[in-house]
Amino acid sequence: MANAETCATAAQFSSPELAELLNREMRRRWSTVGERTEQMAGYALLAPGKMLRPMLLLASAEATGGDSSRLLPAALAVEYLHVATLVHDDIVDDDELRRGRPTVHTHFGVPDALVAGDFLILNMVSTLLECTAVRPAALLEAARVLATAGSDVCRGQVREAGMVGKLSCSVDDYQEMVALKTGALFRGACRAGAILGGAATEHVEATTRYAEHLGVGFQMFDDLLPYLAVTPTTGKPATSDVANLRPTFPVLVGYQSARDADRHRFTEALSGRMPAADSHRLMRELLITTGALELSRTRAAEEIAKARESISNLPGTAAVDLMLTIADLAIDRNR
Amino acid sequence: MANAETCATAAQFSSPELAELLNREMRRRWSTVGERTEQMAGYALLAPGKMLRPMLLLASAEATGGDSSRLLPAALAVEYLHVATLVHDDIVDDDELRRGRPTVHTHFGVPDALVAGDFLILNMVSTLLECTAVRPAALLEAARVLATAGSDVCRGQVREAGMVGKLSCSVDDYQEMVALKTGALFRGACRAGAILGGAATEHVEATTRYAEHLGVGFQMFDDLLPYLAVTPTTGKPATSDVANLRPTFPVLVGYQSARDADRHRFTEALSGRMPAADSHRLMRELLITTGALELSRTRAAEEIAKARESISNLPGTAAVDLMLTIADLAIDRNR
Repeated sequence: MANAETCATAAQFSSPELAELLNREMRRRWSTVGERTEQMAGYALLAPGKMLRPMLLLASAEATGGDSSRLLPAALAVEYLHVATLVHDDIVDDDELRRGRPTVHTHFGVPDALVAGDFLILNMVSTLLECTAVRPAALLEAARVLATAGSDVCRGQVREAGMVGKLSCSVDDYQEMVALKTGALFRGACRAGAILGGAATEHVEATTRYAEHLGVGFQMFDDLLPYLAVTPTTGKPATSDVANLRPTFPVLVGYQSARDADRHRFTEALSGRMPAADSHRLMRELLITTGALELSRTRAAEEIAKARESISNLPGTAAVDLMLTIADLAIDRNR
Repeated sequence: MANAETCATAAQFSSPELAELLNREMRRRWSTVGERTEQMAGYALLAPGKMLRPMLLLASAEATGGDSSRLLPAALAVEYLHVATLVHDDIVDDDELRRGRPTVHTHFGVPDALVAGDFLILNMVSTLLECTAVRPAALLEAARVLATAGSDVCRGQVREAGMVGKLSCSVDDYQEMVALKTGALFRGACRAGAILGGAATEHVEATTRYAEHLGVGFQMFDDLLPYLAVTPTTGKPATSDVANLRPTFPVLVGYQSARDADRHRFTEALSGRMPAADSHRLMRELLITTGALELSRTRAAEEIAKARESISNLPGTAAVDLMLTIADLAIDRNR
């Protein structure tokens, strides 16, 4: 019996099966017909995504000894929140493409897309609360965790906007911003999953530490991608960060370790005064010569190692394996 | 004892005292200094408002026999949701003033204001969940009610945008839209208040009916205001509705009862081809000659009478009195 159960869990907890399960449930709930508000939500949610955050929620429940089979609504809820931030981000940046298709506001116009984002946030709440098989106190706690995570994402977005063009901001400030903007939702997904699954406090904390390190490592590597890949795998152009004057992790690390002459060239590369392709080329050269590129890659790998270590003692081995795989993927997107 | 208690409740449940209590709590929680995200939320929340929805939540708890003293966070939560929709509405309409001050996006820029709206929605959830003295099942139910109310507001906003310039839409469609856009939050506030106060089902339903009629009557009268007042009390210019090509309640009632020649003039008034002041003057004349103005006023008063009737048998007399006063104010804003 124990063996059979482990097999079933192992099968379910491979990444492609879980993503398919989540996508199927998404398609069951949403379509691109019907009332316009639902259409927009369906349009945003049914674009093929990695379902990373919902997977983390389900895996955290299983890894900490819980049963994830009744937590599908909670997993979708996290994705609603994530997609809501993407819909609103795309309006702010006026990006035309997302996941290979026109963005929601490009397709439906800005006013309705703005409302669609709000609608997704509110659906996050009602969908999470569908998990009525969960103990009410745990469900309330998970709702608190996810709402706080969402607020933290907002704080991070506002801080990021305030850092544009500022090479003078410290690496610490940047890391704090990233912990909010990117880390908070990973953290919320893992914590909520563990809490909903009824995990012991030390196991909730273990998945939380995992998520925090994963978030930092994920974003550090994301920041490196434009300067690493010949063909970038992020879906955004390699020049996007310099074009938007974003002082990302390797840039700040490089700037802070650079001598005066090089600092001047960093400033030039992030000034917006050169064509984006030239800025990008100069920045890449600076990151290589200052050693910032290599240092950042090492730092990202260290965070991922810490993420892996955090969950080494959790009881649900199949789900832990999935969480380890997700951690590895965070610093090797071509896998 | 019973007498003393009634007095205390009666004193607390007059509108100015309650509004002051709510505003004081708002000032205790928010300021316009500190982190930028909190600054924006504080800026939006500390503008002097009527606090209608929070008052309805507290009054519904008391009117149905509950104790509202521990529900202050829930009352604020409803206001957060309301203000979030205002912040986003102002972005969409690019309105520069709200409650006599620059709107959030005028003051802080569109990107950050958009995030501030999201932040307020998420704070709605976490603040509601501060009501830990409430039974968990009731708290979960109230969270469901408010999230659904918020989703309904979104649906209503999208429907309203789809009706712009359309004199052909039916009065029924319009009323459905209003029940979502305006009514849902009144309904959510009253229902959540009654549920959080531990009301019996029939009392929850009574406050719900009250809120539904109040919402319809409130919006009908709001639609009339530009054509009634010499000095409008809504804060928006009297020409705003025709300038934005909105087929409001009296306009649809008038159009549908008009003969062909008058229909042509309605179309002209809502075409956007005339200066707004001329359109407004023509529309006002049409609403008077077709009798639509008088009919709409009667219909609004009927809704308010039904709202009043719905709560006539509730036990908490002082709070019921406040709810009756709020209902009367809905069709007489100069009181």
